[in-house]
Amino acid sequence: MDMQSSNHFDPDGAARMVDVSAKAATERRARASGRVRMLAATCRRIRDQQFAKGDVLAVARLAGIMAAKQTSNLIPLCHPLPLESLEVDFAFSEDTDSGDAWVEITAEVSVAGKTGVEMEALMAVSHAALTIYDMCKSVDRGMVLEAIRLDEKSGGRSGTYRRDSE
Amino acid sequence: MDMQSSNHFDPDGAARMVDVSAKAATERRARASGRVRMLAATCRRIRDQQFAKGDVLAVARLAGIMAAKQTSNLIPLCHPLPLESLEVDFAFSEDTDSGDAWVEITAEVSVAGKTGVEMEALMAVSHAALTIYDMCKSVDRGMVLEAIRLDEKSGGRSGTYRRDSE
Amino acid sequence: MDMQSSNHFDPDGAARMVDVSAKAATERRARASGRVRMLAATCRRIRDQQFAKGDVLAVARLAGIMAAKQTSNLIPLCHPLPLESLEVDFAFSEDTDSGDAWVEITAEVSVAGKTGVEMEALMAVSHAALTIYDMCKSVDRGMVLEAIRLDEKSGGRSGTYRRDSE
Amino acid sequence: MDMQSSNHFDPDGAARMVDVSAKAATERRARASGRVRMLAATCRRIRDQQFAKGDVLAVARLAGIMAAKQTSNLIPLCHPLPLESLEVDFAFSEDTDSGDAWVEITAEVSVAGKTGVEMEALMAVSHAALTIYDMCKSVDRGMVLEAIRLDEKSGGRSGTYRRDSE
Amino acid sequence: MDMQSSNHFDPDGAARMVDVSAKAATERRARASGRVRMLAATCRRIRDQQFAKGDVLAVARLAGIMAAKQTSNLIPLCHPLPLESLEVDFAFSEDTDSGDAWVEITAEVSVAGKTGVEMEALMAVSHAALTIYDMCKSVDRGMVLEAIRLDEKSGGRSGTYRRDSE
Amino acid sequence: MDMQSSNHFDPDGAARMVDVSAKAATERRARASGRVRMLAATCRRIRDQQFAKGDVLAVARLAGIMAAKQTSNLIPLCHPLPLESLEVDFAFSEDTDSGDAWVEITAEVSVAGKTGVEMEALMAVSHAALTIYDMCKSVDRGMVLEAIRLDEKSGGRSGTYRRDSE
Repeated sequence: MDMQSSNHFDPDGAARMVDVSAKAATERRARASGRVRMLAATCRRIRDQQFAKGDVLAVARLAGIMAAKQTSNLIPLCHPLPLESLEVDFAFSEDTDSGDAWVEITAEVSVAGKTGVEMEALMAVSHAALTIYDMCKSVDRGMVLEAIRLDEKSGGRSGTYRRDSE
Repeated sequence: MDMQSSNHFDPDGAARMVDVSAKAATERRARASGRVRMLAATCRRIRDQQFAKGDVLAVARLAGIMAAKQTSNLIPLCHPLPLESLEVDFAFSEDTDSGDAWVEITAEVSVAGKTGVEMEALMAVSHAALTIYDMCKSVDRGMVLEAIRLDEKSGGRSGTYRRDSE
Repeated sequence: MDMQSSNHFDPDGAARMVDVSAKAATERRARASGRVRMLAATCRRIRDQQFAKGDVLAVARLAGIMAAKQTSNLIPLCHPLPLESLEVDFAFSEDTDSGDAWVEITAEVSVAGKTGVEMEALMAVSHAALTIYDMCKSVDRGMVLEAIRLDEKSGGRSGTYRRDSE
Repeated sequence: MDMQSSNHFDPDGAARMVDVSAKAATERRARASGRVRMLAATCRRIRDQQFAKGDVLAVARLAGIMAAKQTSNLIPLCHPLPLESLEVDFAFSEDTDSGDAWVEITAEVSVAGKTGVEMEALMAVSHAALTIYDMCKSVDRGMVLEAIRLDEKSGGRSGTYRRDSE
Repeated sequence: MDMQSSNHFDPDGAARMVDVSAKAATERRARASGRVRMLAATCRRIRDQQFAKGDVLAVARLAGIMAAKQTSNLIPLCHPLPLESLEVDFAFSEDTDSGDAWVEITAEVSVAGKTGVEMEALMAVSHAALTIYDMCKSVDRGMVLEAIRLDEKSGGRSGTYRRDSE
Repeated sequence: MDMQSSNHFDPDGAARMVDVSAKAATERRARASGRVRMLAATCRRIRDQQFAKGDVLAVARLAGIMAAKQTSNLIPLCHPLPLESLEVDFAFSEDTDSGDAWVEITAEVSVAGKTGVEMEALMAVSHAALTIYDMCKSVDRGMVLEAIRLDEKSGGRSGTYRRDSE
């Protein structure tokens, strides 16, 4: 092939999976949280398991667990990681002044690997929240996913991170 | 088989995909939005494409689009839907008082189907937001996903919904 | 390219997705069932929700629903179908003579499509059964998946099928 | 946020991936089996490769192998495992009294990991069986998946398990 | 939120799924082809089924069919389509001058939908080719995937396309 | 069960995942390349980002990365591998005599594992190429995927392979 020109793109801006081959596989943990704001009446129906699609939190929990295992398939530059434990928990809270209520979601994940599990924990929280939305949307389309964030992570070169209380 | 007892569970609380076979396939649209709160410096680096993993918003956009197509595989009781259009857009905003900055995300989806595409729009927003977190987390672990919600939807028996301005 | 020979394989035996383009899209339903044989003590623990991994049947139900939606990705020559309803139900039975007990699983699926949903119903039953095995295997490795079969289907050119009582 | 109440759910019954981070990664093997009962005529057609969809057992074998690799995506609380070997084998048997015939399926899997591969072996058998059903159902809807079970497993804290002959 | 600025990105260059909601669902077909160049000895081993991993072409055919069904999950901006038929065929050819040999691959796909199936046909060919590489690479790492292209497509607004003979 | 006969199939020709349990997990790398031949005008439009679906190469790069992570789910007998780095790069070339132009694609992958990453590198190249086709096909259906091949690999029992210049 007689080629006139062959100029490579400037690598700046090109997406890539960061090379972790020189990193050590250490025990890593991450905890993330978030919440779904809703009408107090919606929250009561969740507690009382009054939704046609089923037990909202049992389904949301499974959705969070299963989505976390898919993290590297969905977050484009995430490395695949063999998760070793994964828990999703829920709590209810209510603001009597505004009449708003929340389902609060916490997810905790651990792995022995070369990269952290922050994204897996955030995936679990987000998908639990999205599933709550899906199961309750017929009665409360105004629900809002809020405050999805990393609370704490440990392991790896960057060490331990702990969110300050707000 | 000589059986002593065979008692079915009470259907209350059992998860199920709602039967949509009697519904009409109509044109349905949904628009959702959300934002990622971050340090103003992080936001500037995104604008300037200074992240090692690549062009943050180009990757986040793709992640949102591809995740939306996986909605029924990830949200347990969602029906599969053949999406007909899907767009993800971004904007920047900044609060000069607090020093916080945001990437704002909007997703709009349409389909001709028997169920709506609210979840697909929310999936696109959430996954774009999660991908922004992933690509910038090495410099700003405190980023928060906020205000992920349905803005508008049309089509189907329940008609048009439009979120009131807050 | 100067070719000496170009002989096609005999098509006999070659896997293919059967062409359904000339078929009509009609309402199709299928119901399948199966059971998991186990120790009576295992069955009681399932009823009493005494397993470390969680509420066995709630998880199994979700697993069945989600697997059914993946049928065309897993059964190589199945056509993709937009499922319209999907239910998985459980019942307990016990044989007082042998001391064996069973969780019985039924799945019912419907679609408006060009092919039937027998495989989706069988997938739902099989995956609910496999998930029961997974969640209880630490205490009862001898569990057996039995009698997984199509009970009834309707719609399509071949019409209605109903299994005779055995 | 001024909250009135924040009460956590009782963890009993909540699904979770069991924590395996303290376990050692050892060599683990599992063998499972099952069978598909069918008309003797169906069995002969499988042997003679007379099905329109293709060579039934070659397709079923691949389906079993590929499904086993998806185990952690489909069985909700399974840990992801990097399978190291996987074989699916078939045999024919026939009961001359009843006129029934069977395709018998065996799957054997190995891994070096922190959890066992029982579910991967059972997935391979089940999906091979489901695929046989799919490919032959046009001529024999009465086929039944039977006796899907773990035959043997080794490795891990619980050591070796071997099913007694029945 | 007191915002200083909110400027949208210029839409130019932003990835999006093209809106097909106004298109008619018509019968669409596509045929693609490609080939794997290899040593003549490798080609003979494929014919004689002498590879440790199994019958190369049977596995490659399945891989092509199954990958085509995943097209919209893998090609980022493809629309999901319910494939109605899908065939993958192989032929052998040899160049006696150079000593090279080829497995030639053809895939044909049809659907009734709003977008064409060119990508599904190209996916089937590419994945059949990649699978041939995988199964034979232990003896011939120099194999090359060549001439993967669309041969013909029909249906849709752009009508019929037929590649001219080269 | 009173069985008349039970004869196993001859293992020859049966697909299986090769057993790698006795292999050592070593650092392995692979580099593959390929190109898409197109009209010079198409190539210029890619450079100028003039396609309705978006920035062609940014999307193609992501598609390559994400597909490589799915290799073991799509190439039937591939082992799952936790990829540690993955880069996809592009270059343009043109033949002034023929008027043809090419986008050239290179992918480089590394892992610490028991099998090599040749297939992951070839998957990245193929899917980047397929995505280029998808995004430009509305203006140039005659594009051809060419010369997709392994350039170099290192690690593992078979050591280093380097393609000779052609």
